Amino acid sequence: METQMNSPFMDTQKEELSIPRLIRRKRDGEELQGEEICYFVQAVKEGTIQESQIGALLMAIWQHGMEQQEILAMIKEMMVSGTVLQWPKEWCGIVVDKHSTGGVGDKVSLPLAPALAACGYKVPMISGRGLAHTGGTLDKMESVPGFNVDQSPEQITQMLEDVGCCIVGQADSLVPADKILYAIRDITSTVDSLPLITASIMSKKGAESLSALILDVKYGSAALYKSIESARELAHSLVRVGKHLGICTTAVLSKMDNPIGQNIGNSLEVMESIECLKGRGPADLRGLVTSLGAHLLYMCRKADTLQSGMEQIGRVLDNGTALLKFQAMLEAQGVQAGIARSLCQGNGDVDYFRVMGRAQHQEELRAEKEGVVEAIWAMPLAEMCHELGAGRTKAGTPINHRVGIELLVSLGDHVQKGSPWIRVHRGFPALTDNQKSHLQEALVIGNGKNFTTCSRISEVITSESIE
Amino acid sequence: METQMNSPFMDTQKEELSIPRLIRRKRDGEELQGEEICYFVQAVKEGTIQESQIGALLMAIWQHGMEQQEILAMIKEMMVSGTVLQWPKEWCGIVVDKHSTGGVGDKVSLPLAPALAACGYKVPMISGRGLAHTGGTLDKMESVPGFNVDQSPEQITQMLEDVGCCIVGQADSLVPADKILYAIRDITSTVDSLPLITASIMSKKGAESLSALILDVKYGSAALYKSIESARELAHSLVRVGKHLGICTTAVLSKMDNPIGQNIGNSLEVMESIECLKGRGPADLRGLVTSLGAHLLYMCRKADTLQSGMEQIGRVLDNGTALLKFQAMLEAQGVQAGIARSLCQGNGDVDYFRVMGRAQHQEELRAEKEGVVEAIWAMPLAEMCHELGAGRTKAGTPINHRVGIELLVSLGDHVQKGSPWIRVHRGFPALTDNQKSHLQEALVIGNGKNFTTCSRISEVITSESIE
Repeated sequence: METQMNSPFMDTQKEELSIPRLIRRKRDGEELQGEEICYFVQAVKEGTIQESQIGALLMAIWQHGMEQQEILAMIKEMMVSGTVLQWPKEWCGIVVDKHSTGGVGDKVSLPLAPALAACGYKVPMISGRGLAHTGGTLDKMESVPGFNVDQSPEQITQMLEDVGCCIVGQADSLVPADKILYAIRDITSTVDSLPLITASIMSKKGAESLSALILDVKYGSAALYKSIESARELAHSLVRVGKHLGICTTAVLSKMDNPIGQNIGNSLEVMESIECLKGRGPADLRGLVTSLGAHLLYMCRKADTLQSGMEQIGRVLDNGTALLKFQAMLEAQGVQAGIARSLCQGNGDVDYFRVMGRAQHQEELRAEKEGVVEAIWAMPLAEMCHELGAGRTKAGTPINHRVGIELLVSLGDHVQKGSPWIRVHRGFPALTDNQKSHLQEALVIGNGKNFTTCSRISEVITSESIE
Repeated sequence: METQMNSPFMDTQKEELSIPRLIRRKRDGEELQGEEICYFVQAVKEGTIQESQIGALLMAIWQHGMEQQEILAMIKEMMVSGTVLQWPKEWCGIVVDKHSTGGVGDKVSLPLAPALAACGYKVPMISGRGLAHTGGTLDKMESVPGFNVDQSPEQITQMLEDVGCCIVGQADSLVPADKILYAIRDITSTVDSLPLITASIMSKKGAESLSALILDVKYGSAALYKSIESARELAHSLVRVGKHLGICTTAVLSKMDNPIGQNIGNSLEVMESIECLKGRGPADLRGLVTSLGAHLLYMCRKADTLQSGMEQIGRVLDNGTALLKFQAMLEAQGVQAGIARSLCQGNGDVDYFRVMGRAQHQEELRAEKEGVVEAIWAMPLAEMCHELGAGRTKAGTPINHRVGIELLVSLGDHVQKGSPWIRVHRGFPALTDNQKSHLQEALVIGNGKNFTTCSRISEVITSESIE
């Protein structure tokens, strides 16, 4: 029977909090009160709300957005839905973190955390797993045999005390409301909502009790946001909330059309990260690590200029101190000392594959014409890695850490027709013709006349710049 | 991690059916394909879709609506999600039903079903229960001791054969997808969606394999739709779908500001319905019964004009044949013969309360000034009945069949200050001052200068009129 009504009489009569009522208000584009949002988040945490109601409210939020006050109320309630990490008093001003909205080949966290630790910071990096086409930092770290991402708040504090950094998963006790909401957003096509992304990221960062935070907001064909305008909008929202939470926050907008570095896939990306920690590896990766690190140093007044900050990060990459922190972090998180040492030995070439394993087959594709590499589209490469088994479609399913893609050319390189440009690390079966041609479409070769490379970071947004 | 993307690459690559994909398409305002809608409805029936996904999709449909083709695809798939009733060949053209979108004091179905049976029709009236402020036909019938609304398809056929009408609940086997969707709509504030209402009503009517259907679409302060425009839009949608399903369908738009008849509350409404079946009772109730019946007779070519149809219905109300059908229906659905007989005895006044029981207390309120009754607002009265226990807030909770409201005055009556105008049938506790003043607000007394009564039905929409 079609009998439920939204009568003005009933509204004025019954002002008490109810989930259908707040769904209806958001559905109609109204702004929710702080107490309504708290009521919702508590109901999520306590399981007293139906999942269908969560789905409906998330969709209504997706459609109508949220005001700044609503976002803040949501974040604060989500934060206190679980443990809020507490640090020793003497760490005041030096607990920092970095968050990226997700890119292809984005292994920046892996060298950055130990580099910051080498500069004297405490980096409680709470990361996620890969979903859809982007990799997850946790999955990457788990390709190192023995690495354990499950660490209690006490263990995290101990590692920050001893090493200075860690890369861990989101414990059940940390922002449990976010875990529930995220799982539902993931299956209800409500992931790409600015207020919900802001709430998800910043509630976790708030629960980390950070001093400073650098955000890498990606835009482009292989990013959540295609346009720089929408990425900028998210960055503004994140920085604004950071300020309200008392966290020094800066966001950079960085282009995500081509992969970061040369390697895509879990263990392949760890290898490239270790190379970066040895002062080598791709220039674009090192550039992002030093830039993002520099912003944190600058925010924390450890560097007078960004340039000086970049030099400080560059120095710890070059002098091996960041590498030592990485090695110590591996050991602290369960990797056998011998394995950590063999990965991190500085002199000469390490046979990473011997330590971390290698996919059964390597298959190279060749350039179909001569010219200058003007683009290497990240999206088809990411999709291929996903098909190879490097990622998951559903949370909780196992992945293959060894499969992935190595690029044998860089942007701006001159390639000969027939020269190999990509090495696919795969299990069975062999690539189909369809897959091969899909991969070939990723490589754009031109005459190079109008081609220029430019910095990935195209804009910096600080809390001062959005006033 | 914020990693799920809606990339153009992924879209073109993977065209297979998936729930998140069709949620996203509807979210973005796209039209769903027939196969997508079938996939969704089947997933609902089979329980392979998450409730959060149902909630999100219903909200997206609420926001963006559905095209005619989408609605039809949904209805057809919902119909075949369960049993589709089959009738003997000789009933072709005479299986009819009436549906109302819900009003206050709306007991029209109770006299109408037996009246149509008395005219030779088969009326498999599948009804609902009350939710929120409107009553449900099933709840009303259950106030007759012994009346059983749970009847199998075989029993329904037998009753139509023997009596010609029945008033039954929606069996689990009938449109199970609608049951699931309706329960979720109810808690996610997605009830008042034109395509979803259309699909819910018409899938059930389609599964009844009707020849003709009359729809009473209410509008006004105590109706689902406040404005005649939105009611008209729903009526058009329903009539259009009826035509596609091969059911002769007419809709009337009728005003729902004042209650229908004098009684509100389950057993009180049954009493008033029996009075109508005895050729007595309120004029407005009889007017609606004869009008709606006349439209069916006209559609089935049993009446050349609406006037003649109204006369035919009026005749079976006046000559007792409709009453006999009602009595036979009561007995067929489990009421003891003696009880049915004592309710339906035609001569003199029946003590209905002796048979059906009476609430513990009757409390009258008095008019606060002298003048002409210009309005009796249905909504506060309905809310009071709900508070008294006549309705339910949550499906499945028990109700009190005996409580309710009797109006002692009609529109246009001249009342004296201090004369009783309403009798509240209640249990404990007594009415509070707040409740009394809320009730008093329902009565509008004026000088009567500009007051006119007019027919409740303000518009008739036939399948011809919407071409």
